[in-house]
Amino acid sequence: MPAPPLAIQPADVLAAAQRLRGVAHRTPVLRSRTADELSGAQLFFKAENLQRMGAFKFRGAYNALVQFTPAQRRAGALAFSSGNHAQAVALSGRLLGMPTVIAMPQDAPAAKLAATREYQAGQPGSEVVLYDRYTEDRDAIGARLAAERGMTLIPPYDHPHVMAGQGTAALELIDDAGPLDALLVCLGGGGLLSGSATIGRAMLPGLRVIGVEPEAGNDTQQSLARGEIVQIAVPQTIADGAQTQASGRLTFPVIQALVERIVTVSDAQLVQTMRFFAERLKQVVEPTGCLAAAAALAPGALDALGLRGARVGVIVSGGNVDLARYAQYLAR
Amino acid sequence: MPAPPLAIQPADVLAAAQRLRGVAHRTPVLRSRTADELSGAQLFFKAENLQRMGAFKFRGAYNALVQFTPAQRRAGALAFSSGNHAQAVALSGRLLGMPTVIAMPQDAPAAKLAATREYQAGQPGSEVVLYDRYTEDRDAIGARLAAERGMTLIPPYDHPHVMAGQGTAALELIDDAGPLDALLVCLGGGGLLSGSATIGRAMLPGLRVIGVEPEAGNDTQQSLARGEIVQIAVPQTIADGAQTQASGRLTFPVIQALVERIVTVSDAQLVQTMRFFAERLKQVVEPTGCLAAAAALAPGALDALGLRGARVGVIVSGGNVDLARYAQYLAR
Repeated sequence: MPAPPLAIQPADVLAAAQRLRGVAHRTPVLRSRTADELSGAQLFFKAENLQRMGAFKFRGAYNALVQFTPAQRRAGALAFSSGNHAQAVALSGRLLGMPTVIAMPQDAPAAKLAATREYQAGQPGSEVVLYDRYTEDRDAIGARLAAERGMTLIPPYDHPHVMAGQGTAALELIDDAGPLDALLVCLGGGGLLSGSATIGRAMLPGLRVIGVEPEAGNDTQQSLARGEIVQIAVPQTIADGAQTQASGRLTFPVIQALVERIVTVSDAQLVQTMRFFAERLKQVVEPTGCLAAAAALAPGALDALGLRGARVGVIVSGGNVDLARYAQYLAR
Repeated sequence: MPAPPLAIQPADVLAAAQRLRGVAHRTPVLRSRTADELSGAQLFFKAENLQRMGAFKFRGAYNALVQFTPAQRRAGALAFSSGNHAQAVALSGRLLGMPTVIAMPQDAPAAKLAATREYQAGQPGSEVVLYDRYTEDRDAIGARLAAERGMTLIPPYDHPHVMAGQGTAALELIDDAGPLDALLVCLGGGGLLSGSATIGRAMLPGLRVIGVEPEAGNDTQQSLARGEIVQIAVPQTIADGAQTQASGRLTFPVIQALVERIVTVSDAQLVQTMRFFAERLKQVVEPTGCLAAAAALAPGALDALGLRGARVGVIVSGGNVDLARYAQYLAR
């Protein structure tokens, strides 16, 4: 039986880039002599911490919502998230003039709640709905909201439009940095990684695409070894954007087909990398956003991958971190 | 008696820009919708925290050292500083292949010492010299080092080449942002302010140039009121780059001629602005670097200056802050 086709093709990423033109920021590619010395390679950091709402997630959410039919637009979009996907859908909805409902667990941080509401502000019909994650069934809530209001659920990664949108980060990086030998991309559910691999391998057929997971949450590394999606318990890591239990049914086949391997980094490496970004590049980067850079900066890591002296793209995925917690990381 | 000519002219800044081309970073101009809403104006932030060695000071130091005669180059440059000027001269010297001696008080922070030595690394004849600021006379040390080694002293602000170099930050800002109505610039000794006013008023004759000092160290505000240079005690402020006691003999006449007024901000406003930059723009900015932005973001401040809805340039002067201390500011 032939394998089913992959969920996205390079053309989907190119089309997403046209939809995002003038809406998403074309974030800069940052260089650092010290990072080059530490890694023994030439690193090109794609600064998605400077993206709208502070993370690459805006790309995928907007690319999904902008393709709604008129009926879908009237009813609006629904998302389950207390993280960057929540803010991405909230902001995209407001920009497109459509209502969004963001469902968050009752115990989500107040700051996340406030930020999401701020992005929804002025858009009639938009709201944050809180649920008790211990007593209420998330799928049932989703089904009810979808049925009652006719809203379209946008998942955080396992959706072709989301995957294609995220890939535009890699498209811009390669456009701006020129030919790369390798691309390091963080992953939770694999939306950014699958989109980036799709466009990256099309633009540069020899490109080595390497995913980076937190040590404690290496479900996709295990899945690649096993040849099927492995589900793990919610991983304990400060990389809250990568606390997924399994990669997606749509993202995993793309990763299997186009990604060379997955490497992992520890929370201690993430903290060290956060400090590096603050001290040297003057950039605030959230823990998840440090995953790919931590893999590049670990002593000997790129050597071990045969990437000494190579031109390596590194996606810095976001900068949304609670200031009090961030202060603790820097103070260590 | 006619007033003596000002120490620099617009052409000096233009010439400095040519010398800095390909050497200094052309730092980005950052925008923020939230900052625009808070200020009631359109703010254009010139991100000199992303300049080489982390502050605008590189511009002036390099512009001074690159104009040394062959004999001066062989002997090298001398600077008294434990701040950004130290690192600026150290790095410029290394790039130009000339020795630098940086004299720092014995009790300067170890991190500043290490950073300066790192910038000097590999340049024969370069060193950091420590002195006891309570028992040793700074001028005598300077005179001795100059006499013994024939080194040329580069002061941190009161030097035409330094002033002209700093002005290139405003030149780039106006080039990139387009016509501005006003320009907010921090000041300690007034190097950046005098250079920026010189080029800014030449490019945009109607430009209103406004200096910003820490509340506790408003010597230049006092000087403008008095019509002569006022000297104050070392001010107690977290804006360590603006702890000067008086503006310079060369900078003050330029400020008198071209700057509309000086406004002041409190340390509490600086902390608030540091937090704003981290949270919203994902930028690490040092306290001194927040001066101009704090003046723009203070509620009603731009209104009071008649700048509602105006296009206002804001120079963010640097991002070099000890991480432990920075963490304390963010944790508040």
